[in-house]
Amino acid sequence: MPATPARDTQHGIRRRNLARVLQAVAAEGPVSRAGVAARIGLTRAGVAPLVDELLRAGLLVETGRAAPSGRGRPGSELAVSERGPAGIGAEIGVDHLAVCAVDLRGRVRARVAIEAANRHSEPGPVLRRLSALLAEVTAGIAVEGLRPAGLAIAVPGLVARGSSTVVHAPNLGWREADLAPGLASVRVRSAGCDSPGGGTPIPLTVENEANLGALAELRLGGGAAGLAPPSDFVHVSAEIGIGAAIVVDGQLLRGARGFAGELGHVPVHPDGLPCGCGGRGCLEQYASEEAVLRAGGLTPDEAAAGLPGPGARIALLARRAADGDAAVVRALAGAGTALGIALAGTVNLLDPRAVILGGALAGLAPWILPSLERELALRTAVAADVAVNGQPGRPLVAVSRLGADGPLLGAAHSALRALLDDPLSAGAPTDSPPNRIR
Amino acid sequence: MPATPARDTQHGIRRRNLARVLQAVAAEGPVSRAGVAARIGLTRAGVAPLVDELLRAGLLVETGRAAPSGRGRPGSELAVSERGPAGIGAEIGVDHLAVCAVDLRGRVRARVAIEAANRHSEPGPVLRRLSALLAEVTAGIAVEGLRPAGLAIAVPGLVARGSSTVVHAPNLGWREADLAPGLASVRVRSAGCDSPGGGTPIPLTVENEANLGALAELRLGGGAAGLAPPSDFVHVSAEIGIGAAIVVDGQLLRGARGFAGELGHVPVHPDGLPCGCGGRGCLEQYASEEAVLRAGGLTPDEAAAGLPGPGARIALLARRAADGDAAVVRALAGAGTALGIALAGTVNLLDPRAVILGGALAGLAPWILPSLERELALRTAVAADVAVNGQPGRPLVAVSRLGADGPLLGAAHSALRALLDDPLSAGAPTDSPPNRIR
Repeated sequence: MPATPARDTQHGIRRRNLARVLQAVAAEGPVSRAGVAARIGLTRAGVAPLVDELLRAGLLVETGRAAPSGRGRPGSELAVSERGPAGIGAEIGVDHLAVCAVDLRGRVRARVAIEAANRHSEPGPVLRRLSALLAEVTAGIAVEGLRPAGLAIAVPGLVARGSSTVVHAPNLGWREADLAPGLASVRVRSAGCDSPGGGTPIPLTVENEANLGALAELRLGGGAAGLAPPSDFVHVSAEIGIGAAIVVDGQLLRGARGFAGELGHVPVHPDGLPCGCGGRGCLEQYASEEAVLRAGGLTPDEAAAGLPGPGARIALLARRAADGDAAVVRALAGAGTALGIALAGTVNLLDPRAVILGGALAGLAPWILPSLERELALRTAVAADVAVNGQPGRPLVAVSRLGADGPLLGAAHSALRALLDDPLSAGAPTDSPPNRIR
Repeated sequence: MPATPARDTQHGIRRRNLARVLQAVAAEGPVSRAGVAARIGLTRAGVAPLVDELLRAGLLVETGRAAPSGRGRPGSELAVSERGPAGIGAEIGVDHLAVCAVDLRGRVRARVAIEAANRHSEPGPVLRRLSALLAEVTAGIAVEGLRPAGLAIAVPGLVARGSSTVVHAPNLGWREADLAPGLASVRVRSAGCDSPGGGTPIPLTVENEANLGALAELRLGGGAAGLAPPSDFVHVSAEIGIGAAIVVDGQLLRGARGFAGELGHVPVHPDGLPCGCGGRGCLEQYASEEAVLRAGGLTPDEAAAGLPGPGARIALLARRAADGDAAVVRALAGAGTALGIALAGTVNLLDPRAVILGGALAGLAPWILPSLERELALRTAVAADVAVNGQPGRPLVAVSRLGADGPLLGAAHSALRALLDDPLSAGAPTDSPPNRIR
């Protein structure tokens, strides 16, 4: 979640300027004070005390290499610290749990993942296993001088905006599950309520996995879509269900309650198959993993046999399709058609710059894309031939390079983002006792 | 269009603070300096010079009535001027042209409208007639001490973002029509290019009518939807075609090219009727005025006979439906069903707080709403029972009180908005020669 916009007070302006300096160094890599000043439009004299404060907080370091300098005394180049705060990302999947840590330079410094049969399990035991993974990662990075600055968790379900409550995660079987209490042992702070215990708790964010996949595209994707940086796109992510995230001007569109992006329940055949949501003919009935397995003549159990673990069923579909299994190829083409119909409506409504296929769809793209793009071309013809301000008439359809890693990486980067937006929230500098999750 | 965000320079902060003072007085009505200071979180000493500058520019006036004052010398209450700058809104409809002027207090000070057969006419003659109406309104308000501060024009078509070019307006038959040259006689300034001639030209904005209808809801609607102020909604506007505008956190979502909101081309029956856009089964084939007339057994010519002028066909449909004409009632219910399917997809994607029916739909709501709401309820059930942060589980469906007036009023308010966002752009104070459109 972004920090509250600072008011035009001296304190607010200072906070914003600290964030701009930190972000400039993070974006540029090693850079001189003059380089920072030029990038953010302040004077060198204005930048110097901000840099000093960030150095004292352990967020910036001097590389020791002399910066080229036109005039004045030469200074050492600046870089963001590879010690100090780290963003912790976690993922609760239907088939797996994963945790990773990312440092201020954006590098993954630790990562663990395990298979876990989370379908229709209670939140309690799932969160206990997740807490153990979090403790493992935290202990691992502590050795390298890193401390958790925030935790973000990706879940396959609807999350109430600005809360840690999973309102509905159909494939986990969770309803109205607040994750914060179950993570008390990792000392999280959620929506203003601290967990009991000593030390400063770290902020907790719970977020829909499609949203975090989109954030990963935004921070890391770039090349994925040949866009640098992508700022207006729809990110489609299919695992067991189908979700989407909508990014407008570089910001997630969350919806009034936080439930935006339910692409899986866009009607594609209004009089078609009944859906678990109560509607009929929803996209999910034609393009979800289960729908494709069914259409391809495979039961989920068959699909999982001999191929356990996350992504097993998707891997099987890809292998069968690559081997030329006609039923599977037809099923994937049908999913592409349904996706194309739903995305045509989406594109006509939102006029995005790109549609990015992430998650499982990335691995199945060769068999899904042709029919998807055909429908999209047919149904978004209103002004397909009109380029405006360098934006081509039809959105680019691209496959995410992050694939199934998107939500986890997006979570870790999102946990770090609050710090980049408000460096004073970093808490104690690295030479004070770290606020460790344990 | 909002002013470019000001940087954190002294000048930028002053600009922002001037805007905050002006907006505070505009929102509060007559208010003391202390009241302004309290509202925007500055000290009275900080507010005083800003107020003085706005008084000098003729944007604020002292009402002469003493403001209640706790301490210090009592001052006169402040109000925004009812002289000085006015926002000029214009509308190019398929059947009509209209112009109005709104003062800083938000009151309509002049308004003219004429019937005009603009369907498949060239831009040149249409813009000449519009220029004559603009001159009439400008002359009228000049007598009352008002001068045009900006002009915004509502058009039923796609407008390239940040330009004055109508890329495609199917019902006017316009393609790639830049409106600025045809308005040279009214001295407009568009996208950095001034028209020739003396004096300071006024800024020109050309905008899709659905977007301006939504802006009118945002500034004036409130009560329409029982929302105060509405900040996340989808505004549906049907005249000859069907368009929508999407408002997120109080801002229009325009799309990468400016073409967002093409609700009329969301597929509702993918294998259904062919559409002029090249697709099949688009909403417009089931819910546009023409589709309803056809389904109700009326030809457009029949519908217009004896009932000339803007809105004639809609008025006829409403009268027939009120008289119990079964074919017309059935046709309107069918349009409601199609709208409900398309809006269900929209709501699942965007999770808005409200769906507002504007334009012609407002007058036909009694016959459209029941089936529309039934489809919406059926197909947005994912989390319909979940209220989050006071947002109910299902968006409110409301009928605009502005109805067909929305786009014109939205245009005038939008023309004024740039000034409220950046009062220094006001140009000369009222005691200098006015920059008049002529």
